[in-house]
Amino acid sequence: MYNFRGSAIAKIVGANAAKLNNFEDRVTMYVYEEIINGKKLTEIINETHENVKYLPGHTLPPNVVAVPDVVEAAKDADILIFVIPHQFINRICATLLGKIKPSAVGLSLIKGFDKKEGGGIELISHIINKQLHIPVSVLMGANLASEVAEEMFCETTIGCKDKNMAPILRDLIQTSYFRVVVVEDVDSVECCGALKNIVACGAGFVDGLGLGDNTKAAVIRLGLMEMIKFVDVFFPGGKLSTFFESCGVADLITTCYGGRNRRVSEAFVKSGKTIEELEKEMLNGQKLQGPFTAEEVNYMLKAQNMENRFPLFTAVHRICTGEIKPTELIEYIRNHPEHM
Amino acid sequence: MYNFRGSAIAKIVGANAAKLNNFEDRVTMYVYEEIINGKKLTEIINETHENVKYLPGHTLPPNVVAVPDVVEAAKDADILIFVIPHQFINRICATLLGKIKPSAVGLSLIKGFDKKEGGGIELISHIINKQLHIPVSVLMGANLASEVAEEMFCETTIGCKDKNMAPILRDLIQTSYFRVVVVEDVDSVECCGALKNIVACGAGFVDGLGLGDNTKAAVIRLGLMEMIKFVDVFFPGGKLSTFFESCGVADLITTCYGGRNRRVSEAFVKSGKTIEELEKEMLNGQKLQGPFTAEEVNYMLKAQNMENRFPLFTAVHRICTGEIKPTELIEYIRNHPEHM
Repeated sequence: MYNFRGSAIAKIVGANAAKLNNFEDRVTMYVYEEIINGKKLTEIINETHENVKYLPGHTLPPNVVAVPDVVEAAKDADILIFVIPHQFINRICATLLGKIKPSAVGLSLIKGFDKKEGGGIELISHIINKQLHIPVSVLMGANLASEVAEEMFCETTIGCKDKNMAPILRDLIQTSYFRVVVVEDVDSVECCGALKNIVACGAGFVDGLGLGDNTKAAVIRLGLMEMIKFVDVFFPGGKLSTFFESCGVADLITTCYGGRNRRVSEAFVKSGKTIEELEKEMLNGQKLQGPFTAEEVNYMLKAQNMENRFPLFTAVHRICTGEIKPTELIEYIRNHPEHM
Repeated sequence: MYNFRGSAIAKIVGANAAKLNNFEDRVTMYVYEEIINGKKLTEIINETHENVKYLPGHTLPPNVVAVPDVVEAAKDADILIFVIPHQFINRICATLLGKIKPSAVGLSLIKGFDKKEGGGIELISHIINKQLHIPVSVLMGANLASEVAEEMFCETTIGCKDKNMAPILRDLIQTSYFRVVVVEDVDSVECCGALKNIVACGAGFVDGLGLGDNTKAAVIRLGLMEMIKFVDVFFPGGKLSTFFESCGVADLITTCYGGRNRRVSEAFVKSGKTIEELEKEMLNGQKLQGPFTAEEVNYMLKAQNMENRFPLFTAVHRICTGEIKPTELIEYIRNHPEHM
């Protein structure tokens, strides 16, 4: 783990591991080594128990040990928690292959899809599972790291197929302020965490166009309907109730009212600049998830001749690429399949 | 119909009735007579086709005829659309009894519950049904009258049990900017329109307390879960999917981000004044729906010894009455049945 979210979850997992008898106290945390004011970041963390780079001002439990070598960090672990930018997942898995406990289980907090070779999407949990041959659960929800670190009350969803493992993961993650609901429906939970960003772009366009609150609510709702439909078509077997969990409706709401996909998309409409230009200006060149996910999803819809069944996803993709104007958004969803 | 919402819907219904062959052109609109600048409001409307009091600046279709006598307005109608403040519904029904076509059907747009004698709630559609002996459908959703009148894109949900009537009601209401989904689940649709106001009070408290976006998302989500559970207990037989319609998740979102229940509840926390004081100051003495609904719902929960299964509804009620402090909200929902 080497980001803000990783440190926030390490704080929770460390405290629970120390408190509960069925976990070993020591929690190793892989930290990408950097030199901060002439000193190694891992040394700073292990001496001061503060991740001065990613979670300054918060004390990590002393049983959380920063380790600069990912193989060393993972080698005796029974539970591997993945919290890294998704573009590094293949490399990390390749490094870990054969070096972890064969009985280990994974828990992925990584939001967003990976690009499949040749086009389309691949779930991060599936990548980890295929590469490391371990079962992988996921954790998603409306839980911004900054608020979790501040111990503000929030919820999260764990998707875990294994009924024996589910309570163990819940105990490891749940605190009085970070409330867990476990569902079996792993793929749906993970899909929500990526697809919501497409909807957030749509919500941002509505804001940029100065349309009303009810138009925005309609776009969010139709987006949710397309998320459900998409999962039903491409990752069947899920339950409708999963979309009422924190990973579904709650995360969607926060993303469509706060969140950078909404913010950049609003600016896209108002400024007339391209997404790439705005990524440079507003995100220091970081890639925005929504347009990327919209493109990969569109690839899959096109291949199945299903674009007209997902008019919002399709419109968002075409708007991001400049194929159509943002003002055309409403025309696309006016005769939505939901209204037939 | 004699309010803003009534005029907005009359505009739609008038245009559709004129356009479609299976409806009579003439749409009568009951208007509570008033004198505006020395002239009767009904006369102004029928001459200028503008409801200068409730929908100024918008032209009503010429086939919409304002009638100051409710019996006269309703007497030959096949479809009666109810859009009045809910405290007048009993009186209007008593006036109409025996004066309407026996084959008429009702469509209620009235949001909010009525108080049952002795305590608890009564659905408005049930009151109309019992008093007039006609089947009653309902229309609810994220469709603020001002935005509907401006022809901004939005959605609505019609709850209609009668499969033959459903497409007729849809055709009467649907336009290119006002999109209709019909479901059979009438009681769930109507309950959503009232229960959302309790949740909006919770969302307003969160805003007033300065808690984070994720806490607010958690409160909204847990509120939605309690809405679903409440309907399941007291009006069983509904479908989970109804809560994904505009009447459910979409209306809940707009109410919890905009809306006066949220606004007054935020002020309640920040000012320390009572709800009654704020109603006077902020709403010209009009009653806020959320606290009233919370009280009636609480009466029902208490009678069934179920308060602990609805901790958010219970907390909102107790906060509104001053029994507990707003800061206790989170303690109430920390061990929510959803987290068990």
